[in-house]
Amino acid sequence: MRIDAAIGDLEALLGERLSRSRPVRDQHAQSETHLHAGPPDAVAFPRSTAEVARIASICAHHLVPMVGWGAGTSLEGHALALRGGLTVDFAQMDQVLEVRPEDMIVRVQPGITREALNAALRDTGLFFPVDPGANASIGGMAATRASGTTAVRYGTMRDNVLGLEVVLADGRVIRTGTAAPKSASGYDLTALFVGSEGTLGLITELTLRLHGQPEAISAAVCAFPDMAAAVNCVIETIQHGIPMARIEFLDAASVAACNAYAQMQMPLQPHLLVEFNGTPAGVAEQAERFGEIAAEHRSEGFHWASKTEERARLWKMRHAAYRACLAARPGSVGWVTDVCVPISRLAEAVEETQRDIADGGLPGPILGHVGDGNFHAILLLDPESEAELATAKRLSGRMAERALRLGGTVTGEHGIGFGKLGYMAAEHGEAWGVMGDIKRALDPHGLMNPGKVVCQT
Amino acid sequence: MRIDAAIGDLEALLGERLSRSRPVRDQHAQSETHLHAGPPDAVAFPRSTAEVARIASICAHHLVPMVGWGAGTSLEGHALALRGGLTVDFAQMDQVLEVRPEDMIVRVQPGITREALNAALRDTGLFFPVDPGANASIGGMAATRASGTTAVRYGTMRDNVLGLEVVLADGRVIRTGTAAPKSASGYDLTALFVGSEGTLGLITELTLRLHGQPEAISAAVCAFPDMAAAVNCVIETIQHGIPMARIEFLDAASVAACNAYAQMQMPLQPHLLVEFNGTPAGVAEQAERFGEIAAEHRSEGFHWASKTEERARLWKMRHAAYRACLAARPGSVGWVTDVCVPISRLAEAVEETQRDIADGGLPGPILGHVGDGNFHAILLLDPESEAELATAKRLSGRMAERALRLGGTVTGEHGIGFGKLGYMAAEHGEAWGVMGDIKRALDPHGLMNPGKVVCQT
Repeated sequence: MRIDAAIGDLEALLGERLSRSRPVRDQHAQSETHLHAGPPDAVAFPRSTAEVARIASICAHHLVPMVGWGAGTSLEGHALALRGGLTVDFAQMDQVLEVRPEDMIVRVQPGITREALNAALRDTGLFFPVDPGANASIGGMAATRASGTTAVRYGTMRDNVLGLEVVLADGRVIRTGTAAPKSASGYDLTALFVGSEGTLGLITELTLRLHGQPEAISAAVCAFPDMAAAVNCVIETIQHGIPMARIEFLDAASVAACNAYAQMQMPLQPHLLVEFNGTPAGVAEQAERFGEIAAEHRSEGFHWASKTEERARLWKMRHAAYRACLAARPGSVGWVTDVCVPISRLAEAVEETQRDIADGGLPGPILGHVGDGNFHAILLLDPESEAELATAKRLSGRMAERALRLGGTVTGEHGIGFGKLGYMAAEHGEAWGVMGDIKRALDPHGLMNPGKVVCQT
Repeated sequence: MRIDAAIGDLEALLGERLSRSRPVRDQHAQSETHLHAGPPDAVAFPRSTAEVARIASICAHHLVPMVGWGAGTSLEGHALALRGGLTVDFAQMDQVLEVRPEDMIVRVQPGITREALNAALRDTGLFFPVDPGANASIGGMAATRASGTTAVRYGTMRDNVLGLEVVLADGRVIRTGTAAPKSASGYDLTALFVGSEGTLGLITELTLRLHGQPEAISAAVCAFPDMAAAVNCVIETIQHGIPMARIEFLDAASVAACNAYAQMQMPLQPHLLVEFNGTPAGVAEQAERFGEIAAEHRSEGFHWASKTEERARLWKMRHAAYRACLAARPGSVGWVTDVCVPISRLAEAVEETQRDIADGGLPGPILGHVGDGNFHAILLLDPESEAELATAKRLSGRMAERALRLGGTVTGEHGIGFGKLGYMAAEHGEAWGVMGDIKRALDPHGLMNPGKVVCQT
């Protein structure tokens, strides 16, 4: 790496939009979790694809690593500059480029956040549904194959990115996909780059599928006597084909944290939060059928939130659950796990995990997008305690191994970054080697977000 | 290529399941279209993944090309052995390996056809929705990223393949995906292999998403005064978010062919065939709203098929449309085109195409899955006429160029094979080179279905 020469060339290109200041570099070494690394050598703030392509050419020439940065909300250290080099911050590439309501698509730059995008779409009658909770950037969400509360109905980023513009490691610019709803033309490069976590290229533009804002929305919260009853209610609802827009699980510990943080008064029992989207008649029918299934599973205290404000409060509470859990143990940091299992193994996976955490002696509320078989434990650590860090690492590791044993994956939505690199061989076997082959074919010098996702020699 | 040595090794492995007979080889040189090539040197009929892996190792050792074969129903010459070598016919790997109704997934071998799969699933209350018309093999459907009449509701093979087992060019066996509904773990190799047309590996097992058999189904056929009215009805229905299970367009020429072939009496006008799936109340609501939109676009002769037999007759007629068109010009062969455009450009694309075909002087009924922006013209040629072949090639080429000009793709569902290789550079630009990079990384000797999809040096 010839960093000084590269910085000279980058300063000539970007002027003040190339920063070497310590505060800016430190800001790009932050992570919301226990994962840490040193700062990058410099941070670039490009304004166009052409600038990103020039940046990549300069970095390639001087063998300088490039790490993309969106909103910094990822949870496995994806955007940390493990080997120094340049962080490419897309904050100044945050525009909506084109809305095509008649095609229900939008073209955006990667730095726009999902909330800003939906604010811009409000008057079109359309919305972008993927909702990981955090107000992440759309580019980062694509890079990590994000999903969240609405995936059970609208799919993940895999399903909602129609095309990309990508700057490759050598500065070439490619476009993947078209504006047509489907294609059988060649390899699915869009799907390859979605979830590649910046290790194959930097996303500079995205074409996204939009959905009609539902005419009617109905949401409910209800309690269950135990976790198995709640999870089995989810399983049965899915098997009946009732199209839920969201279905979220909170265990009793999560409920206690949310009560305290958001001034709610939910009983200290496992809860489901559920939402239906559709026509008025459709939503009414779905809600009624869900109510019947929930009753069979001994649901209690059913509360329907039909008003917009009530629903907003409900989902705000759910989105604040991470903060609420952290607040439940003041001074703690969170080790946020993420696994996903086949629906039929969900109750088993959640129950075993809960027992294991209880035995481990750390607070670890469990919650998640159970309609996808996806759940999280938020392990609350004293950041000064090596012993607690070791316990969290062990619990998290066993959770990943449990997910694999039950036929699932070590991450449903948070991704690999470097936090989960150690499980890749166990999950993918020889296929992990194939990922490495692809990485080397597209980035032979290993400059794109090195140390993440694929085996690096 | 050391074919004789390879055949010796393959005979030792497979015995009589390695065929060099001329009829068997010729059968694997057949194509349903105008595309032709010589026969492979031999045809293998493996019965297990282990055998396929051994076959690949032997072929790799002797540098013999390998071409997968499912049901032989593809339309761009995908399964033709352009450079000789070995065709691997999956007819004897056609088993359902595991049905998991509670997870709504099934594991199958690649040789099973979609009709056989759905027959096996009948008593589970589940079905596999992707329906390209032909009774294709599931492995072939995955390899070509097939879709068809139901994609507007249930998605394409991209959306319905959850995981794969693949034998690579060097005989390694990998598994992609898990049984969990989603994952953010590493590159999406499942999506990379789906649509790679056998150029990156041979699919030996598939895990598929299933869907609940709908409680209620309602289908209708209606006529429109002109094509623009029919297409605009489709566009508006989509924009209203009415979830159609199928919506098919037939132009007046297709209707005439179907009338003659299937003893129907539809008026000689453009028609839409539409189907709704769901709960009884949901289907009734959707049907009513579609009826209102269709009426605004001057629909005529609306006929609802609520009985199973009536619906079966309707879709049988639609599926037989290709044969019906061929029968409309006895002795002809079909040049079956396939393009896909953004929905907003659909009327323009279809109208321009119809005018161009009329000017070209060949019969060319137009029909397709208009809910996806996907449509076909079936150009009917005298197989002995070089002039007609040239005309068809010109019309088909202009149709592809038109799709690109309108922001679409040269193929919505038929794939590239070698029939559309000539459009890859125009559609993908530099991204086609990236496909070639991936190909070389996984298959450095170019043994997997050579001459298809990617640029071969």
